Amino acid sequence: MADTTKFLLSEEAIPTHWVNLLPDLPGDPLPPLNSQTMQPAGPPDLTPIFPLELIGQEVSAEPEIEIPQQVREVYKLWRPTPLFRARRLERALDTPAHIYYKYEGVSPAGSHKPNTAVPQAFANAQAGIRKLTTETGAGQWGSSLAFACSLFDLECEVFMVGSSHDQKPYRRSMMQTWGATVHRSPSEQTQSGRANASHPTGSLGIAISEAVEVAAQDPESNYALGSVLNHVLLHQTVIGQETITQMEMAADQPDVVIGCVGGGSNFAGLTFPWLRRKLQADGAGPRFVAVEPAACPTLTQGVYAYDFGDTVGLTPLMAMYTLGHDFVPPPVHAGGLRYHGDAPMVCALLKAGLLEARAYRQNETFAAALQFARHEGIIPAPEPAHAIRAAIEEAKQAGEVRVILFGLCGHGHFDLAAYDAYLAGTLQDPEFSQADSDAALAALPQGAPSLA
Amino acid sequence: MADTTKFLLSEEAIPTHWVNLLPDLPGDPLPPLNSQTMQPAGPPDLTPIFPLELIGQEVSAEPEIEIPQQVREVYKLWRPTPLFRARRLERALDTPAHIYYKYEGVSPAGSHKPNTAVPQAFANAQAGIRKLTTETGAGQWGSSLAFACSLFDLECEVFMVGSSHDQKPYRRSMMQTWGATVHRSPSEQTQSGRANASHPTGSLGIAISEAVEVAAQDPESNYALGSVLNHVLLHQTVIGQETITQMEMAADQPDVVIGCVGGGSNFAGLTFPWLRRKLQADGAGPRFVAVEPAACPTLTQGVYAYDFGDTVGLTPLMAMYTLGHDFVPPPVHAGGLRYHGDAPMVCALLKAGLLEARAYRQNETFAAALQFARHEGIIPAPEPAHAIRAAIEEAKQAGEVRVILFGLCGHGHFDLAAYDAYLAGTLQDPEFSQADSDAALAALPQGAPSLA
Repeated sequence: MADTTKFLLSEEAIPTHWVNLLPDLPGDPLPPLNSQTMQPAGPPDLTPIFPLELIGQEVSAEPEIEIPQQVREVYKLWRPTPLFRARRLERALDTPAHIYYKYEGVSPAGSHKPNTAVPQAFANAQAGIRKLTTETGAGQWGSSLAFACSLFDLECEVFMVGSSHDQKPYRRSMMQTWGATVHRSPSEQTQSGRANASHPTGSLGIAISEAVEVAAQDPESNYALGSVLNHVLLHQTVIGQETITQMEMAADQPDVVIGCVGGGSNFAGLTFPWLRRKLQADGAGPRFVAVEPAACPTLTQGVYAYDFGDTVGLTPLMAMYTLGHDFVPPPVHAGGLRYHGDAPMVCALLKAGLLEARAYRQNETFAAALQFARHEGIIPAPEPAHAIRAAIEEAKQAGEVRVILFGLCGHGHFDLAAYDAYLAGTLQDPEFSQADSDAALAALPQGAPSLA
Repeated sequence: MADTTKFLLSEEAIPTHWVNLLPDLPGDPLPPLNSQTMQPAGPPDLTPIFPLELIGQEVSAEPEIEIPQQVREVYKLWRPTPLFRARRLERALDTPAHIYYKYEGVSPAGSHKPNTAVPQAFANAQAGIRKLTTETGAGQWGSSLAFACSLFDLECEVFMVGSSHDQKPYRRSMMQTWGATVHRSPSEQTQSGRANASHPTGSLGIAISEAVEVAAQDPESNYALGSVLNHVLLHQTVIGQETITQMEMAADQPDVVIGCVGGGSNFAGLTFPWLRRKLQADGAGPRFVAVEPAACPTLTQGVYAYDFGDTVGLTPLMAMYTLGHDFVPPPVHAGGLRYHGDAPMVCALLKAGLLEARAYRQNETFAAALQFARHEGIIPAPEPAHAIRAAIEEAKQAGEVRVILFGLCGHGHFDLAAYDAYLAGTLQDPEFSQADSDAALAALPQGAPSLA
């Protein structure tokens, strides 16, 4: 039994603080801008839909923020999550590399999303809020917020993108099991929905508008977002902090840390604590690789500019790599990675040369997922399959021992239709449309400072 | 952080031996009988479809059997599994009881079934077998065997009951992801299937016949069974052994241990190690409660008699509580509990008064599952929801501190259609048909010794 497969921590090892990387960012800060005034967006831009506690976390200059005791109590339901050494995969690859993965699929909702859903629900409950609204695409975020709300006696109202609502009925069932109300978006509940009633599939943009509209109109309701924003990335840093302890248990140190990137919260959660250590060690530390779908190559092909975070244009402008806020990514199964932009903090780090970015096609990603499942057992969600692909490539390139750590941010129990298509040889492999992105980039908001 | 929620063990705590309760059974042994000769069935009855190693385990008189090192290595992918204290559920129930649950849903296939799939695949691989065949209903067993075969480079051929194949396509996808070949049963692959080609939904009985037929005809193929037999129950005893250590960590001792019963392997796995301790302590120890669906009340309403283990009548006769081997249980969602008989070892213990048995209706079971999910997070499979119902009842009856331990043997990620129906108020609540069982009992095999 000498060859340890998984590294477990007891509940006492749940981090006591979140790591706030905002003060570590190199260069001048690039705050979000009010899209009307082009002035930095402040708390008044956000109080209609977020509680003060989360707004404070969004703009905090403190290097660490304490995790409330009540949140840590809930984290105990699944945290600390296990770190695995992929010994069977290593043998199959016949590689000298050591491959480790941090598995977030053990949470009740099956991904890393509850790490932020819980503190968001808690902060809103503390502020006297009665209901949270949100949008969801594939359903990972909506189900995580439904779970979190059930624990703090909050109502939860989810606007689910119409096409997902039709294709993934069991993610909807999951939300309802935890007590949430789920609307197919566009819905009859909101002006935004009724104005788009003829839209056949709906979109994340419409669903966001609906959720924000409901929250903004009701003083007892707030809105919750599952990625992109600073406070969301902050909450996810429990992941990386635990891996630092677990890699010490394994007596190994990573040469490269890999995560998939959609909005950026999974990637940030895993890497930011490692990145702070590297910055404090004058650059001695692992490389960081952000992996995205070739069909939606925000980091590898996007433009660094101020753009809206949503499709409709309701949010403040954010400094980020973008394909244009009305770029509609092809329907790859990694729904969580279909985002035109990326978290401003992740983008600033890439711009500063502190991260690498890489893109893979859908079919090569599923080939890696299948190889992983047949050796390690866990069937990965399509999103972290991108990280698996990168980890396998790093291992194949390793002429000598190279220590690879990647984030396995969720299981694929609700994504098996995609595996079906892959096994049948009918999985689409959509290409990125530079022309579509160019058209969307032509509609970037005017008057914002250039970041070129 | 004083209130521990989950009790984790490191890999070193994976048991080194399985607990064989066969020598502990009270009274005269009741061996399986060859249905032709009515003489005890011996190894020659079994060698066409099982390897000698497993046949040896099936009849062993040794109190413990060592777990092969290679099996323990695979167990590390998910074992030891966590023991949780259900603190949120306790508060919601306002009970002085302490409620603990052992969660087997962390395995790659999502239930306790891999605990036996892995040693079965290993023993067959060691014996030079190239392929394993099996049947599956809801898919938990088939997916577990597919997973295990992928690790030992065995082919896996699964005959999946037609109605499940049509209704649960994602369980099929899961098996294929692990490399198994899945046939809708009745299939064109076998004589048994072709003879039943007109059967619209198929049945477990037909699927067993198909799997056994393929295995018996090919010397390089064997058959694998997921419950009922002694060696299957044996493999599951890792569950109970771990809970003994974990309850010591919790500084609590159970007053009652509860598990759901279909074929009996989950229940046996949890309870047999505790039961041995109780027998060795002259009866000082917890009560044991076996819970089954009221629609298929084998233990609570069945007759203790020699009967076939399968519907078609291919197996040796087994001494068990039975509703008659051709009794077809109503289509409750707890597919894993729809079995006309029960493991002979579990039945012998019930007959001897060492266990209690209890049955619940489908709707009251789902009410308990929903209450559990909304407080503890995990969405349970319909089978262990029966154990949850019993645990909640035990807690409500507890006037003073009562320590309750139950087995949460799997998650419900592939059962959300049933939750949908429950939430919509359209879940059927089928009753047991005594008349159907009486008719089936009239067809009990003639000439076997009476057990009355």
